[in-house]
Parts: sequence; structure tokens; C-alpha cells
Amino acid sequence: MNFRIDNLQYANWSEKIFRQMRAGGLDAVHVTIAYHETFRETVLQLEAWNRWFERFPDLIFQGFTAADVAHAKDTGRTAIFMGFQNPSPIEDDIGLVEVWHRLGVRFMQLTYNNQSLLATGCYEDHDTGLTRMGKQVVAEMNRVGMVIDMSHSAERSTLEAIEHSSRPIAITHANPHVWAPALRNKSDTVIRALGKSGGMLGFSLYPHHLKGKSACTLQDFCEMVARTAEMMGPEHVGIGSDLCQDQPDSVVEWMRTGRWTKQVDYGEGSAAAPGFPPMPSWFRDNRDFPNLEKGLRATGLNPKEIAGIMGNNWARFYEVSFGGQA
Amino acid sequence: MNFRIDNLQYANWSEKIFRQMRAGGLDAVHVTIAYHETFRETVLQLEAWNRWFERFPDLIFQGFTAADVAHAKDTGRTAIFMGFQNPSPIEDDIGLVEVWHRLGVRFMQLTYNNQSLLATGCYEDHDTGLTRMGKQVVAEMNRVGMVIDMSHSAERSTLEAIEHSSRPIAITHANPHVWAPALRNKSDTVIRALGKSGGMLGFSLYPHHLKGKSACTLQDFCEMVARTAEMMGPEHVGIGSDLCQDQPDSVVEWMRTGRWTKQVDYGEGSAAAPGFPPMPSWFRDNRDFPNLEKGLRATGLNPKEIAGIMGNNWARFYEVSFGGQA
Repeated sequence: MNFRIDNLQYANWSEKIFRQMRAGGLDAVHVTIAYHETFRETVLQLEAWNRWFERFPDLIFQGFTAADVAHAKDTGRTAIFMGFQNPSPIEDDIGLVEVWHRLGVRFMQLTYNNQSLLATGCYEDHDTGLTRMGKQVVAEMNRVGMVIDMSHSAERSTLEAIEHSSRPIAITHANPHVWAPALRNKSDTVIRALGKSGGMLGFSLYPHHLKGKSACTLQDFCEMVARTAEMMGPEHVGIGSDLCQDQPDSVVEWMRTGRWTKQVDYGEGSAAAPGFPPMPSWFRDNRDFPNLEKGLRATGLNPKEIAGIMGNNWARFYEVSFGGQA
Repeated sequence: MNFRIDNLQYANWSEKIFRQMRAGGLDAVHVTIAYHETFRETVLQLEAWNRWFERFPDLIFQGFTAADVAHAKDTGRTAIFMGFQNPSPIEDDIGLVEVWHRLGVRFMQLTYNNQSLLATGCYEDHDTGLTRMGKQVVAEMNRVGMVIDMSHSAERSTLEAIEHSSRPIAITHANPHVWAPALRNKSDTVIRALGKSGGMLGFSLYPHHLKGKSACTLQDFCEMVARTAEMMGPEHVGIGSDLCQDQPDSVVEWMRTGRWTKQVDYGEGSAAAPGFPPMPSWFRDNRDFPNLEKGLRATGLNPKEIAGIMGNNWARFYEVSFGGQA
């Protein structure tokens, strides 16, 4: 059975988008439910999802285990797996890791762009690696079955997370820095270490992470995927589109500045282009996943490798990642 | 298979007590994790339990489904089911009902002794029944599979909860008022309505609820059980001991006054006896459950009825109560 999985989205959720997930054949989507939110604020996000699950049971349901991906496919729905792009929802309390795992959270970034209590973000000047609490939280995430995500973390912190974690970690949404030199994209050193450790890289479709940004071609993107698959092993890559569909620009402001500054921070944007950039024409939204598959076929990748990238690799990773440590 | 279940305890938990649960042959215990705590404070209580589950996996584990009672028996452990004696952990947010159910909370009192946002407690002068929010929360608890517990509620509120709930409710820990006229004990009207609706009454061993208090005899207690079983139907009664083992008297103060008053409130105690009363000699703690069984045998109850009261009735009630509404 082949699965189709997008391992990172943060859309302005609506029935329209859930129907587009079905139209695009998505069996599972990992959705972000926190950027800078506290514990209680993040619970409100979970509550909003619970209302969507109650309203649209024919389209979506909450995923907790790898088996829910197959269950979604069997029932013609999309399993929604939850994650955080910042450890703010655990505040300074390691006990909240298990609480959130019970509530279904399966991925947590140790940092967003800034220094966190756990590690260093990719926009800081100095990267001091995992903190004391960071090491404890990595071990606790390993114990309960919550995946360490270093998409927005700095180089040393990322390498230390790979090293310190007893289970494979993920970079759910980023591309190779050598292909598109965004601060958020990853060095070959990180990419190789990630592959060697059994981890997963999800390729981002967010224009600021693409070569040529919004003008990036499908061919260029797919060739980058093929080259990276060759470097890491084709079983270690997948899609993490970073799709932020229908979000107002106030949301990208929240992502960038949260409550940590009173100044404007343009992040990957600029004063001239502060908002969400337009998506590439060949990846508007969930309906365009078949385009990616078509594009990958035009590279040298074989059908099994392509099926892995389109979802089977994430499904296999879910299987070894979401349960408690043996 | 016969089960032994105590459907209400709030002890000062320790390895000693968990070992006494095993010595007493308890397959399941429903434990209180909140009296007046807010949402966040109650999460801290859950975290404390998670640490006990991690430290004593050979003695206890968290119960989520009725099947966990059999699993506990099969593995020689005690399944711990969680509940609230007050709706304070859902604050003013109905969405927290589902969140708490996911975290394993299976019982919630609509009130402790005072008026709550949902209903009226047994110590108020005026009982106005279910509030607007109360009716909504009852429906939500019905939907997700959280049992409505009216142990500390006033008469009209209790009858309205029985009426309004689409699923059987429980009075987890109380005795008949006619036997021991404590304000907390229940009228025959309530007891009959509860039995008729398929609900469950758990008999309390808390001395303030006993005839003769700490001096109550095993025979007197068991005869009361047998008479109530006759009135309600023997399949509708069980044990909810209200055991508060090893708690300092500061805890009974917290139960009685929380943060709602700056005055002293003696509740069921008095200025002369403000603390926890001594337990009856025949029910010191979990190790004395066999005494109850022995005492029940001396009444006219048959072995099947006794097995029901000692645990099978709660186990059957768990089966129809803890899952989502069909």
C-alpha cells in the first residue's frame, strides 16, 4: 500500500482545505499547532482542532499512531498529526512532554528561530548547542515517542540533537543550503549526519526556501530532491511542504516576532516583501501533490523511491517513532 | 472473572499504599486528582501520577478503558482511573472536557459542596438545579464518555443530572441519608431514581458518612449495603470508599475551604474534631477489602451479588461509560 503524506503544514484551516487534502490524496498531514503559544494557549488550538474533527468526521480525524495512516487510507480520510514549531507549549516543565504526547503531539522543534530553553535557533549569532534542560527533554521525548524536529535550529544544536537522541530525529521542512542559501536551509554536514542516523528530511515548498523563490521550477525542485535522496539515501527523505494556505500576513508576523520583540523582524522576508510570498504555480495547495509525483518521475528516481518520498518513508518513520521506548 | 474495584480514593499516595492496593487485591481504583484546582494545577497532579506510573510499573498503571481492569488483573497490577470532585479543572471552557477525557479523566463531579458553574452543591441553601452551562457540559460528557458524578451535589441538581444525562450517571461515594443523616448522604428519592436510570452508587467508608461514625460496625455497614442493594437492584451498587489514607489534616482543610473563603469551615467535622476522623477498625486501608467481602457474606446477599458489589458492577459500568457515544 502506498501512502501520501505531507509532514508540515500550517494553513488557515477550513472545510475547503480539508476537501483539498482529500482531492490531493493526502492520507496524513502533520499540522503545526504552536509557534510561540504557552501551554494553555496551545490547548486552545487543540480544542479548535477537536471542533473540526467533530464537524468534519468524513474528511479528517486525529492521528495518534502509524496505523492511523492506513486507517485514513482505508476510510478515505486524512489523519491529522500534531506538532509544535517551538517548545513554548512545555514552558519550563518537562512533565508536559508526556502530557502533550498523550494529547497526540508527535513532533516538537527544540527551537524556533531564537534561543529556547532547549537549544539555539538558526537566527542567533551564537549557537551553544543543547542546554541542560535540552538534553533532559530530548531523553524524555525519546522515552514517550515524540519526534525531535530541528527545522529551525542552528547547526551545532542540530548536530548535537542527532548525536544525543537515542532515536532518529527529523528536519520536517527545510532544503539543502547549497541549493538555496536561506539561513533556514541545511548544510551538507547536517544532511549527511541526519541520513546516517536514520533520520528524515522533509522538503519544503515555502518559496523562501526554494532556489529562485516563487519562480522555482518543478524540474529544479525535483532534481534537488533526487540529488539529496542520493546523498542521504532515498528512504530518508519526504515532503514537509510548509504550506501556509489562506493565512493573512499577520500570521507570518506572529511567527517571526511572537511576543519576544517590539520591533519589526522580517525573517526571510524584507521591508519590500514582508508578507507570505506567492506559492510556485505548480504547488498552489494540497491538490497539487500529483504534480510533485509527476515531477519526480522525470528525474532518475525509480517508482519505489518516489513512493517512499511521497509518503511511505514518513509512514515507516511514524512506525518507529510514535510509540514509547522499548 | 471477578474484579475488585474501589471507585473513590484520595490518599497521600506512596509506594506503601500501592503495595497495599495489591495486598487488598484491588484491580482498579478511581482516584481524585482535583478538588479546587485550576486546569493548570490539575495538570501538575496528572504529572505527579505520570511519575508514579514510571516509578512503579509493576504495581500500577493508568486505566483508560474498561478492558484495562482485566489487563490489571492479568498482570497482577492495579489500574488507576482518574476523576475530579469539582469541575474547576475545566474552568469556564467546555472544550476542556474532551481534552481531559483524552488525558484519561473518567469521572467529574458537577459540584463539590458549593455552587459551581454547572450545578448546586449539597451545602448551599438554595438548589437551582443544572445551570445553562451545566446542561451543555452534561451533553459533552455524555458525548466523549466521562461519567457525571453527583456525590457532593444537592438533591434537585442530582435529580436533574439523572434526568438530563443520556447515559447513566454515578454517585461514586455516599450512603443513604436515612441510615446516616449526613448532609452529603442521599435521600431515598435520589437513590431510587439513580437505580432506575441504570446508575451506580458507591458506598463510602468515610466515617462522617457512617452510622456511628468511626464506631460503625462492619455488620451495620453491610446490612445497609444489602438493604440499599434491594432498593436499587444489586447490580447498581459498589464501593467508593473515600479513603484518604495518610493525608495530613491540612488536606481536609483544602477540601473544605479551597480558595473560596477566608474563614474556617468545618464541613462534616467540627471545631472539636476538625481533622480527618479515624477509620473504622475493620477498614483501615486497602488491605481490608477482604473484610468487606466477609461482612457481605453474613448478610442475605448471594455470591454473585457480592461479587458485583466488590467490583463487577463497576467493571460493567466502566464498559458502557468510558467510550464515546455511539
